[in-house]
Amino acid sequence: MQNDVLALAKALINRDSVTPNDAGCQTLMAEFLRPLGFDIEMLPFEDTQNMWARKGKNGPLFCFAGHTDVVPAGPLNQWHTPPFKATEKDGYLYGRGAADMKGSLAAMLVATRNFIDKHPHHDGSIAFLITSDEEGPFINGTTRVVDTLEARNEKMTWCLVGEPSSTSEVGDVVKNGRRGSLTGHLTVKGIQGHVAYPHLARNPVHEAAPALAELAAIKWDNGNTYFPPTSFQISNISAGTGAGNVIPGTLSVQFNFRFSTELTDRQLIEKTRQILDRHQLDYDLDWTFNGQPFLTDSGELVEATRTAIETVCGRRTELSTAGGTSDGRFIAPTGAQVIELGPVNATIHKVNECVKIDDLYKLADTYQAILARLLC
Amino acid sequence: MQNDVLALAKALINRDSVTPNDAGCQTLMAEFLRPLGFDIEMLPFEDTQNMWARKGKNGPLFCFAGHTDVVPAGPLNQWHTPPFKATEKDGYLYGRGAADMKGSLAAMLVATRNFIDKHPHHDGSIAFLITSDEEGPFINGTTRVVDTLEARNEKMTWCLVGEPSSTSEVGDVVKNGRRGSLTGHLTVKGIQGHVAYPHLARNPVHEAAPALAELAAIKWDNGNTYFPPTSFQISNISAGTGAGNVIPGTLSVQFNFRFSTELTDRQLIEKTRQILDRHQLDYDLDWTFNGQPFLTDSGELVEATRTAIETVCGRRTELSTAGGTSDGRFIAPTGAQVIELGPVNATIHKVNECVKIDDLYKLADTYQAILARLLC
Repeated sequence: MQNDVLALAKALINRDSVTPNDAGCQTLMAEFLRPLGFDIEMLPFEDTQNMWARKGKNGPLFCFAGHTDVVPAGPLNQWHTPPFKATEKDGYLYGRGAADMKGSLAAMLVATRNFIDKHPHHDGSIAFLITSDEEGPFINGTTRVVDTLEARNEKMTWCLVGEPSSTSEVGDVVKNGRRGSLTGHLTVKGIQGHVAYPHLARNPVHEAAPALAELAAIKWDNGNTYFPPTSFQISNISAGTGAGNVIPGTLSVQFNFRFSTELTDRQLIEKTRQILDRHQLDYDLDWTFNGQPFLTDSGELVEATRTAIETVCGRRTELSTAGGTSDGRFIAPTGAQVIELGPVNATIHKVNECVKIDDLYKLADTYQAILARLLC
Repeated sequence: MQNDVLALAKALINRDSVTPNDAGCQTLMAEFLRPLGFDIEMLPFEDTQNMWARKGKNGPLFCFAGHTDVVPAGPLNQWHTPPFKATEKDGYLYGRGAADMKGSLAAMLVATRNFIDKHPHHDGSIAFLITSDEEGPFINGTTRVVDTLEARNEKMTWCLVGEPSSTSEVGDVVKNGRRGSLTGHLTVKGIQGHVAYPHLARNPVHEAAPALAELAAIKWDNGNTYFPPTSFQISNISAGTGAGNVIPGTLSVQFNFRFSTELTDRQLIEKTRQILDRHQLDYDLDWTFNGQPFLTDSGELVEATRTAIETVCGRRTELSTAGGTSDGRFIAPTGAQVIELGPVNATIHKVNECVKIDDLYKLADTYQAILARLLC
């Protein structure tokens, strides 16, 4: 049984599924799930492969969510093993996607099979929502599958996303929500000119500097029990022709808010505009909205997960909303309880990505214990 | 006689002398000056052609200074005439260098010949200091010729630089000095990180913004009778990987001071460092020193020039220190009186550079009148 988890993880890692390619991973998962009684629905959108697999027609519906795509390998000469050939070494499994999140997918599959073997007459239904567009622009992935389900009023009760949530030891951290994310694209307009004739020009860097200083200094909120304070970060800034004697005509600034449930995206946009206006800047400002904050602060799913981790891993877990965005943000608005539980994330998106093999076994056992607690 | 000015200007423009190429311009000038009794000394340094031509051994020494190199033509399809084929049209002469400053060189040559014809036994000496590296990095041009002259204690009394000083009408503005120029190259160091984990990073844009705002707001001095207030301008700024979710690790800023004689470069460097230190920035700061401010506030040269312009052009001239740097900054420190007088600068460094042909004649007459006033 343990060997199945390892074999499945290897088979998935060996498929070079750099986003948005699925490279046959979902077919492999479908072939595993179909004999267990799952109905398989492939939902491709544009360049993205998606799979909705469901066993059972009744509620409550427990769903495993995840992605088969991975980020590119990065510099190959820095990898000690081939990134798309799963390799065991010193108790770890190496390869792109080992931790994010093919190891989790393997654990979900084996947990589901073992649970069904043991509880063939379990309550409710089990589903898998799998996409190949989590690492990419996330336009044709989970969000469109959720739209499809919503359109036919198919509702998840609980959703466990297999993102690598753990920090030092498997299960030490579970994500029960994420901050919202909002990106601003600011262009401050001045008048280009020669540095020797400043009275004929208007330097947009000079005009913007006090406004940027103010934006960087603001305490947007204090956060709350579940969220750290809202954070503003300038990620990119540029102005100038390269020549040393030219006053630039425009300044471009990109910044990002990670925001708590204490604020809305509208409030952030409003306050940003107020500050830019007060500094009398001539500017254009466009926004990319990356997702509302979401939170599952309590309920059966959180409790089942806590208990399962305590039983299988022997540790108390910490609920956290820190970190980047995840597809959970598309699922939470449907009303589902959503948590994220996966292996240690120390090596994700880096060269020599790896996962402790024993953690994959613990993860499969934990997932199975969660199913047992919710569906028996 | 007038035709000689036009013919010489055309012959110089037709030589494609994009900096640092001289393209035979100095040879043409030498061939004109040698029969007048000038000793010609060619002083090439690296890629730069320089000429020191002198007639007479006694003081006082009047020197015409200028350059044969030009800036590149720029977009050819925007030129109405070929940039390196001098073309007359509606009373104007078109071509790269027509105003900056091959027209001035032609006027200097003819003024000198006519002056000598009329006053073969004039006082003192006349010289030409000509370089092909004024539009380039100005490393191997005027500054090295001046070093050569200083080494043998050969001193100019008066120097007239032919830079296009005029604004609307020829002679309306004479430059009697220039501001100093000092460029700072600032790197502010932070710690790169993911925008979702700001507590693990340090954003150099955020840390630098208040310091930049302060630098931009400072009144460095009030200028004086001859100089506008010292000006600080950020010319280039950049930070960021391009990705929207990465806090940049460093911020690069390039800025330039144009400074009056009320301040020294040392004071500017000191004050800049104080501000950056007070904001507790972790930074590297390198400087490029482009030149001290210089000023010829009064004296025989200024008076001779004022009077000549009033006589020939029928207008009162304005003394100004505004505008970019010029090779005058290398000559003034030797103790020479330095002024700059040339044609209208409206089209310099632009496509369709041109000069009013009649202005070239006026310029030749004005130069001749200055010589007469100083050396008779």
